[in-house]
Amino acid sequence: MSTTGVTAPEGFVAAAARAGIKPSGNPDLAVVVNEGPDFTAAGVFTRNKVCAAPVKVSRETVAGGQLQAVVLNSGNANACTGQQGLDDARTMQRLTANGVGTEPSRVAVCSTGIIGDVLPMDKVESGIAAVVKQLGDNGGDAATAIMTTDTVAKEVVVKGDGWTLGGMGKGAGMMAPSLATMLVCLTTDAKVTPDALQAALERGCAATFDTLDIDGSTSTNDTVIAMASGASGVTPTQQELDAAVLEACAQLAAKMQSDAEGVTKRVTITVTGAADDAQALHAARTIGRDNLVKTAMFGSDPNWGRVLAAVGMAEAEMDAEHISVTFNGQTVCEHSTGAPGAREVDLSGADIAVVVDLGTGGEGRATVRTTDLSHAYVEINSAYTS
Amino acid sequence: MSTTGVTAPEGFVAAAARAGIKPSGNPDLAVVVNEGPDFTAAGVFTRNKVCAAPVKVSRETVAGGQLQAVVLNSGNANACTGQQGLDDARTMQRLTANGVGTEPSRVAVCSTGIIGDVLPMDKVESGIAAVVKQLGDNGGDAATAIMTTDTVAKEVVVKGDGWTLGGMGKGAGMMAPSLATMLVCLTTDAKVTPDALQAALERGCAATFDTLDIDGSTSTNDTVIAMASGASGVTPTQQELDAAVLEACAQLAAKMQSDAEGVTKRVTITVTGAADDAQALHAARTIGRDNLVKTAMFGSDPNWGRVLAAVGMAEAEMDAEHISVTFNGQTVCEHSTGAPGAREVDLSGADIAVVVDLGTGGEGRATVRTTDLSHAYVEINSAYTS
Repeated sequence: MSTTGVTAPEGFVAAAARAGIKPSGNPDLAVVVNEGPDFTAAGVFTRNKVCAAPVKVSRETVAGGQLQAVVLNSGNANACTGQQGLDDARTMQRLTANGVGTEPSRVAVCSTGIIGDVLPMDKVESGIAAVVKQLGDNGGDAATAIMTTDTVAKEVVVKGDGWTLGGMGKGAGMMAPSLATMLVCLTTDAKVTPDALQAALERGCAATFDTLDIDGSTSTNDTVIAMASGASGVTPTQQELDAAVLEACAQLAAKMQSDAEGVTKRVTITVTGAADDAQALHAARTIGRDNLVKTAMFGSDPNWGRVLAAVGMAEAEMDAEHISVTFNGQTVCEHSTGAPGAREVDLSGADIAVVVDLGTGGEGRATVRTTDLSHAYVEINSAYTS
Repeated sequence: MSTTGVTAPEGFVAAAARAGIKPSGNPDLAVVVNEGPDFTAAGVFTRNKVCAAPVKVSRETVAGGQLQAVVLNSGNANACTGQQGLDDARTMQRLTANGVGTEPSRVAVCSTGIIGDVLPMDKVESGIAAVVKQLGDNGGDAATAIMTTDTVAKEVVVKGDGWTLGGMGKGAGMMAPSLATMLVCLTTDAKVTPDALQAALERGCAATFDTLDIDGSTSTNDTVIAMASGASGVTPTQQELDAAVLEACAQLAAKMQSDAEGVTKRVTITVTGAADDAQALHAARTIGRDNLVKTAMFGSDPNWGRVLAAVGMAEAEMDAEHISVTFNGQTVCEHSTGAPGAREVDLSGADIAVVVDLGTGGEGRATVRTTDLSHAYVEINSAYTS
């Protein structure tokens, strides 16, 4: 019995293959199959208006609340590929459905890789034919097959009371080099309704992936799919389900943050004292996306002035004369002016916590996770061969 | 008779000094004086909610429509300096007024440099005392004294029919490393009303500095001041005034773009086919700020997929299936899919023009100028000593 990733819960099998989509020859195709008895499904998709063919197909498929399988490929995002791309995504759906013995309308499709190239469908077809013959407790193989610039496979298992939630993910936030970035597949043997699963997934994503903001870029392919087999026979409360999904998403998001391209610092930006949570989130994002803040973090420079200049751009209510900032718990700015010793705070470690209070006296609060902006980021993203 | 920068028009004198605010000992203080007969003034200021003391003081001062002098310092932004900063800006105003023989309410103050440090007022006071004794045709010296990370002084002269417009500026868009960034001072001997000058300035800035977007950061100190002496006796039409101010702003903005920190490419992003100009501008900014697009430009990589992924994030109406993109006039994407030869377009030159049509059939159109994101940008902004 497998205990890793998507095949940890009962009722799920998976397999991966080297289909040859990636020039490197690394594994690049995976299928995750729900063997039931339930085929409950939920999904969350990119909000980018330019979305990839597999997103269009899977959004429609998941809307029915039932899925029996997900087919995923890396090395090619099948994005900006027009009608051919849509046809190809539907072919992937059909081939997988035939292979695992279900209807195409019960198969979701996820792709990740370069934007703008048409899929090599001969390779994809052979790959699917091969992979459906190897289905088993191979969650780890599936997690490896969806990697692009990821340096490590990303899996998670959360144990409930008599039920289990597993998952795999790929991506470095929205940061991969023009690649279709974040893909996540969660599986559980809990016995839950599509609505319950969808609600848990939306809440979990909002608090985790949605606040992991590496460079402000939203990909064309971001997809989070959840499937529930009901094989444990246990129905958790909504609260228990929410908690497990949140925990799984949080662990996968943390792995993505640590593996973000070029990262030398993990930066957590918390905004407090905002009029409401939405304004706090907007302010935290504005700081977390500011290149001047991000390069200062790379330089271990306690440059609180850049944080103030960044937050001042946010469309959030603030008392511009009474903003305060701490770096790793040390006060560096009070009443919007420098605190004693602010320039000497040590930020040489890998983790930097920035807390900014907007001074409105409100209860609004939010946290965003990001990274520094390093030479390696520029190198990876400029040297990447289109 | 001077022919450069702010002292090119009749009725203006200027001077600069090494006050010792900059550790380097380079010139860091300048005064520009309007000798009349008119003392018409206009100003445009940063929209950052966290704005520096000199911005607060000058905004109030310029609101009266009359200015006799501007005092400018580099090396210290006097931003995030609380009540002390406000007191210091008012002291600069008063010292300059005394030195040139006017009221403090007729002197604007501009500061640029590091955020969060209190001004060394003893040095500022000696500097102002020295500089007001050297007033003359020294536009070039003044332009040099306001430089921070600028590598060249930035001046402009535009000739009208019997009147002249001069100007100086500093800054690399919103890009300087946590520095108070863009300062511009325009002078003219045209005989115009404050309202006419303010209207021309707002129109000129909107089309130039407001669309120069190096890294999306808006500084705490951005200030554009215009003064008119009326010494030519000529009153241009509003259209003539608008055209001259626009030309001066455009030339200074182009100099800033070319001198932006770490720049290896000058990138112009034009969006067409939008529902209206405002949506086109928002879409162009979204593309111009995207780090994945900017690193691709640094790598001379014709990665149109990143442009599509970026524009898809914009809050602008678009036909996501019918977006087209050209790089330097060559079509790389049509109907949101790749055009033949798209990956072979040569972007090795220093100038890259990106045109994106949103496919709505609308007339909306806007252009934003930006730069690439290079190793040097990261180096300058991470190594900068706070």
